[in-house]
Amino acid sequence: MSSPYICKWGILATGWIAETFAKDLLTDPSTRSVSDVEHRIVAVASSTSASRASEFLTKIGAPHESAKTYGSYEELVADEDVDIIYVATPHSHHYANTLLALRAGKHVCCEKPFTINAAQTEHLIRVARENKRFLMEAVWTRFFPVVKEIQRLVHEEKALGSVKRVYSDFGMQFKPDPKHRLFNPELGGGALLDLGIYALTWQMILLYADPENNKTAPEVTSSVIKSKLTGVDEFTTMILNFNATGAQGVATTNMTVRSAGNVVLVQGDKADLTVPWAPYRPESFTIHEKDAEGVYTGKNETRKFDIPGHGMFWEADACARALRDGKLEEPTCSLAESTLTMKIMDQVRYDAGCTYPDHIEAVEQ
Amino acid sequence: MSSPYICKWGILATGWIAETFAKDLLTDPSTRSVSDVEHRIVAVASSTSASRASEFLTKIGAPHESAKTYGSYEELVADEDVDIIYVATPHSHHYANTLLALRAGKHVCCEKPFTINAAQTEHLIRVARENKRFLMEAVWTRFFPVVKEIQRLVHEEKALGSVKRVYSDFGMQFKPDPKHRLFNPELGGGALLDLGIYALTWQMILLYADPENNKTAPEVTSSVIKSKLTGVDEFTTMILNFNATGAQGVATTNMTVRSAGNVVLVQGDKADLTVPWAPYRPESFTIHEKDAEGVYTGKNETRKFDIPGHGMFWEADACARALRDGKLEEPTCSLAESTLTMKIMDQVRYDAGCTYPDHIEAVEQ
Repeated sequence: MSSPYICKWGILATGWIAETFAKDLLTDPSTRSVSDVEHRIVAVASSTSASRASEFLTKIGAPHESAKTYGSYEELVADEDVDIIYVATPHSHHYANTLLALRAGKHVCCEKPFTINAAQTEHLIRVARENKRFLMEAVWTRFFPVVKEIQRLVHEEKALGSVKRVYSDFGMQFKPDPKHRLFNPELGGGALLDLGIYALTWQMILLYADPENNKTAPEVTSSVIKSKLTGVDEFTTMILNFNATGAQGVATTNMTVRSAGNVVLVQGDKADLTVPWAPYRPESFTIHEKDAEGVYTGKNETRKFDIPGHGMFWEADACARALRDGKLEEPTCSLAESTLTMKIMDQVRYDAGCTYPDHIEAVEQ
Repeated sequence: MSSPYICKWGILATGWIAETFAKDLLTDPSTRSVSDVEHRIVAVASSTSASRASEFLTKIGAPHESAKTYGSYEELVADEDVDIIYVATPHSHHYANTLLALRAGKHVCCEKPFTINAAQTEHLIRVARENKRFLMEAVWTRFFPVVKEIQRLVHEEKALGSVKRVYSDFGMQFKPDPKHRLFNPELGGGALLDLGIYALTWQMILLYADPENNKTAPEVTSSVIKSKLTGVDEFTTMILNFNATGAQGVATTNMTVRSAGNVVLVQGDKADLTVPWAPYRPESFTIHEKDAEGVYTGKNETRKFDIPGHGMFWEADACARALRDGKLEEPTCSLAESTLTMKIMDQVRYDAGCTYPDHIEAVEQ
């Protein structure tokens, strides 16, 4: 047996998502039956101080001698030992941070949403390609075994028959607070970019990725209720018409009421499939059989999938394999789909008049 | 105890819906604890032959001597014994049939959807008012005790707290057939007018009728996938922004996949409320309690409501009481709300380019 490929990560930022990702990197790959790749955290940077990066190592339970700690992102991306940078800042900063890392010659896995708008995403892709560097938006949900099994059942096995309609929702109840990240336009706030991307991702996973859709972009219609506090999108509903397959998707998000029960409903002519909370970290699905009139027969099958950790390691494994194989893109989470998703979110925001301050939306020339 | 008011009905058309309504008229009011009004079917007309009207009486189990039978609607509306006409033709004919009855001096209860477009509805209302005749769209769902209890709980008792989002759906699985009423533009086909009106009615009942909405019309955004067979709307989703209350409604309909599980979901900040199938004839609801983070506590309360018949008698009782009291309109199903509903459906159809032949959309000058 050949030894596993070791992927050497630099962690850019030290907040909650960075902690979660880093803990998953430290999880023994054998607990998820992975033996071909392994992860090392070789450096961590806080934008404020190296001691904060050091505290981060303590928090995630990593030995301090294992990783260098930096008080600036510039130092991190200059570290020659780092293969790939994980960008874990608020999404208002993803564009600048990713650009910094790519320009320093690093591969990048950047948290979702990729950037604030599609122009920024397209610019990052151009820079990555010019520099021949791997780039991926960390849409971790796409990499869960349960999601891949749903895709196999729906697209290959055709377990639901012909899929006609998909509902997807991600709503969370946040206390109205103009200073909170989600309410703050200066941080790219609003439900859509932060939560709505998951509702949209399920539409991409199910209806866009349907082989019969042949990668045809959906026609998008949307409506937004803006927050009375700060004007960011508070309730957003998107209707996606996939004209190649004749299927309609309804993706909803909001930051005021939490999703109820199921967060995804896939309706086919033979069966329906539901996914219960959480939309970002699915652990099971149920298939509901239907009779010739479309009425549930009462015959259901639920399948649960164990997640030996938080579940971000699967996307990390995909990055490691791409680096090992010299690939610059991961097909499970293609740059084309990230761009399309950003374009849809652009359209939804612009149609509703929900824009961010110029410096947040800017693209370097 | 005073004797009940006797309401004398003329049944215009002899199809399935006429049968169902007529059977409900024959149901003993005491089974639904009603003693102030009673119903008589005094005449029935088929547009093709009196014998068909006669067969209708046999089918519904009415004694033949009790009602006159006619082979034309003109004869029916001229019958001096008839108080009120129940219009039970396909909706492409509602406008002409109701106009005929109103012009003959009859009160009218007309099946839903009222007409093909709002201009026709507005014209009927003008004629009814000019002639001082009672007019109502038979949106029977509004009159169910279970619906009135839901409204009381949501609007008066505030059992859900502040209502933030409502989903409503009515989908049925019809075999694609260009000759079927639902696929036929000549009969005002498509999902919206036939099925979608129920999804929309739930939005009206819950979000429009919220006292805090103060009868403010919603902002409507919609999207349609047209039938490849005949171009009528096959999948229609409407997003209704109620800006006065900040609540968003999502109403969906289609004629290809049946609604799944619950057909209505009302989300408040304290609790959610779900209504299971059928959207037109609800028999129960469940309240799902939530904690401070909006997560279901697992404490649910389901209430079932017995329907001693098909359930169309409650709207008939309301018509009878209006006639008894000399009212020309029934507030439970106001002409203003019928007009608004038709205007919303107009906008949805016109935005999608789903119009019917000119003679179907026409309004008499």
